[in-house]
Amino acid sequence: MTPGARLDAIVAALGGELTGSGETLIARLAPLESADHNALAFVAHVRYAAQIETTHAAALIVSPALRERAAARGPCIVSDNPYLYFARLTQWWRVHHDPLPPATVHPSAWVDPSAELAPGVSIGPFAVVEAGARIGFGSRIGAHVTVGRGCVIGQRCILHPGVVIGADGFGFAPHDGQWIKIEQLGAVRIGDDVEIGANSCVDRGALDDTVIEDGVKLDNLVQIGHNVHIGAHTAMAGCAGVAGSARIGRGCTVGGGAVVLGHLSLADGVHISAASVVMRSIHQPGQYSGVFPLDDNVSWEKNAATLRQLHRLRERIKTLEKNERP
Amino acid sequence: MTPGARLDAIVAALGGELTGSGETLIARLAPLESADHNALAFVAHVRYAAQIETTHAAALIVSPALRERAAARGPCIVSDNPYLYFARLTQWWRVHHDPLPPATVHPSAWVDPSAELAPGVSIGPFAVVEAGARIGFGSRIGAHVTVGRGCVIGQRCILHPGVVIGADGFGFAPHDGQWIKIEQLGAVRIGDDVEIGANSCVDRGALDDTVIEDGVKLDNLVQIGHNVHIGAHTAMAGCAGVAGSARIGRGCTVGGGAVVLGHLSLADGVHISAASVVMRSIHQPGQYSGVFPLDDNVSWEKNAATLRQLHRLRERIKTLEKNERP
Amino acid sequence: MTPGARLDAIVAALGGELTGSGETLIARLAPLESADHNALAFVAHVRYAAQIETTHAAALIVSPALRERAAARGPCIVSDNPYLYFARLTQWWRVHHDPLPPATVHPSAWVDPSAELAPGVSIGPFAVVEAGARIGFGSRIGAHVTVGRGCVIGQRCILHPGVVIGADGFGFAPHDGQWIKIEQLGAVRIGDDVEIGANSCVDRGALDDTVIEDGVKLDNLVQIGHNVHIGAHTAMAGCAGVAGSARIGRGCTVGGGAVVLGHLSLADGVHISAASVVMRSIHQPGQYSGVFPLDDNVSWEKNAATLRQLHRLRERIKTLEKNERP
Repeated sequence: MTPGARLDAIVAALGGELTGSGETLIARLAPLESADHNALAFVAHVRYAAQIETTHAAALIVSPALRERAAARGPCIVSDNPYLYFARLTQWWRVHHDPLPPATVHPSAWVDPSAELAPGVSIGPFAVVEAGARIGFGSRIGAHVTVGRGCVIGQRCILHPGVVIGADGFGFAPHDGQWIKIEQLGAVRIGDDVEIGANSCVDRGALDDTVIEDGVKLDNLVQIGHNVHIGAHTAMAGCAGVAGSARIGRGCTVGGGAVVLGHLSLADGVHISAASVVMRSIHQPGQYSGVFPLDDNVSWEKNAATLRQLHRLRERIKTLEKNERP
Repeated sequence: MTPGARLDAIVAALGGELTGSGETLIARLAPLESADHNALAFVAHVRYAAQIETTHAAALIVSPALRERAAARGPCIVSDNPYLYFARLTQWWRVHHDPLPPATVHPSAWVDPSAELAPGVSIGPFAVVEAGARIGFGSRIGAHVTVGRGCVIGQRCILHPGVVIGADGFGFAPHDGQWIKIEQLGAVRIGDDVEIGANSCVDRGALDDTVIEDGVKLDNLVQIGHNVHIGAHTAMAGCAGVAGSARIGRGCTVGGGAVVLGHLSLADGVHISAASVVMRSIHQPGQYSGVFPLDDNVSWEKNAATLRQLHRLRERIKTLEKNERP
Repeated sequence: MTPGARLDAIVAALGGELTGSGETLIARLAPLESADHNALAFVAHVRYAAQIETTHAAALIVSPALRERAAARGPCIVSDNPYLYFARLTQWWRVHHDPLPPATVHPSAWVDPSAELAPGVSIGPFAVVEAGARIGFGSRIGAHVTVGRGCVIGQRCILHPGVVIGADGFGFAPHDGQWIKIEQLGAVRIGDDVEIGANSCVDRGALDDTVIEDGVKLDNLVQIGHNVHIGAHTAMAGCAGVAGSARIGRGCTVGGGAVVLGHLSLADGVHISAASVVMRSIHQPGQYSGVFPLDDNVSWEKNAATLRQLHRLRERIKTLEKNERP
């Protein structure tokens, strides 16, 4: 483990065009505004260009458009996509300068003898892998994770601490004022390269399985109901919830705290803004929102009170319009 | 464990009227649309009747109204309430064809010597039952559940993985710009036949107990604040939250992501739509909603901006009306 | 452990002015409405004064304004701030009559040899403290808590069961329809006297650390994204979420289920109502709200439908106004 890396070693590993001294020593990666003179920072967008002259960073990763300006102040790496370059740099840095513990089944974990763990699987402290579950090559199961009976996790997945895969879906038949449990006989199938944030939950299906396709990314405290189907490379931010049997397309994004009601379909490429509630199926890709705008409390109270009369206000406008036209 | 069941065995166990061959072999239960020719499916409602002719199911559970139509295609079970029949069938199937592990205290669980476990209690891996807690007959405590000091769980309850019963309620007295902790000296009392979803939390009371009555069903990631009282057979969907000292009646439903503010009362039979916020007590049963409708982002932005002027728009309508009347 | 305390012992320990018999025996603390004749209750506010005559409490804690009225019915403690007095009384009661188990590292916990635990630290069953983490004097880490690699917890903190400190922040660069992981190389730094509720999550920073300052109180199921900074003595109620890189001031409150979007700044002393969504930075202290008012379902449907035409209604009002003025 070296205490850092030379700029030319980074370019040798990750590509990009080096400008200035390749011997520049990088001790850490840092944001532009907090970078010190041992740090490598990146300029994600032209709108941050003004920080090029003020940052203390030892070197910068910039787009071709900012090459001259960055070179004028010191060493830099020019890349067509600095943000992507930065992502790959963090991965290279992780491996070379801040490695995770080697993949291992922690001695405290409880893995049922009938569960199947592929090579390279890492199981964290106190994790539970129940009977018949299968976990694919290179997946990392965090501390306190539960992978329920018969559930399947693909390759290279990351399940952060506290994730619960395969708890019972929420299914009951009403009868005489009580709830009769519908046993949840399905399981959960999770594809490859899926990442699921801390304390998130994916319920098992009632009869068929709940399915999360390849490359899906779920943030923390996300709830996925039974028999939901999430298409490949969809991402959902923290505290989002998807109710039972909803079907979300590929390449969608769901903002933090958003809710998708049950049995709905979202087309591929649908983007739901944070804290919005999806109450109808969406068949066209695009950005959708539904949030009450924040205001100072007094203004909000007035507007919210008026909102409860909105339909009647519309009737009054209609009447005014009618009276106007002779 | 047989690989399946004959239709007449199901009817012998659960009742209903058999039409067609009782020797029909059922290998699995399945939804209408994905059922194969070894599967038993149910038609929950007349509006799905069109699927009777298209499903590949070996047999169907239908209401009397669909008897002829279902019988025309093959074997069926006629029941006055197919959904309830299906719920009971999943329970029967669970026991006979997909049984849970026998009730046992997992050797990895940590149960305080002063806790009391009734017969038939199941405690999952790494679950914690603290001092003085009591768990009733036949209850199943999942992996990583915490049942806090002095908390009481009734009979036949199910607590899914990661549930926390009896963490401190959120109580502080403000003083000189800081928060002085109010020690939470109450506990949690949970009735019989209560089910609580993965990673949900029920806080202990400040002085008196937090109370969840018989037959309540809480989905995943639900938050119940201190001194809340939830009436029997109320159900709350995922990510719902109830703030401290709220009192929710019997037979209520609270939709996913809905929020009930503190110190409010909801009458029996109140139904709150998903993602709605209850800010005043509700004294009449019925369905209540409050969600900003989702729209494409451009339309939403225009309407949300106008909403911030809604009270003034009302004043302008008033003025128009006044001017109109001479 | 005595079965209770005399009123004069309480006043000797916590101050206040005793009226009536100091020999009054207090067996428990209780709310006014459920207090029995062995209980000590407090009157938080003059608006509850009517309960002074109806409560069965053995003694009352009241403000000077209620001294006469309370003294007329029996023993009382007069304090300038009964709510604060009550908070301190619960702390005294906890120590003397309902003590927590002594601080200890539970034998089932997994603490990495490179982690540093200060004296007086309590680590609950199955808690995980990863490599290089540091936990300050007197902090209590609950059951099933994860404190991730290199994260720092201050003194006298309380982390309730299931809390996850230092899971990866949610950072990905989009590339060719997929998400490229940005390794999260920062950590989490938590100040002194911070309390974090059950199953809440604080993510590690991408490059710099996520920071929670002294005296912050977070309720259950709260999500704090990477690189968030929360100022001292801010409190957030259950199910609230703060997206990445948001900066929340000192002495703020965030209501239950509220959402703060990423990269925003909230000034000191900003108060966000429950279930509101902060979509722009807030530079002035004050109370802010944004919640769709709850209504019976039929009224809500009408108003919500009209809301989707609100911008056009405004145009129609403009037209009416234009036509009116000749």
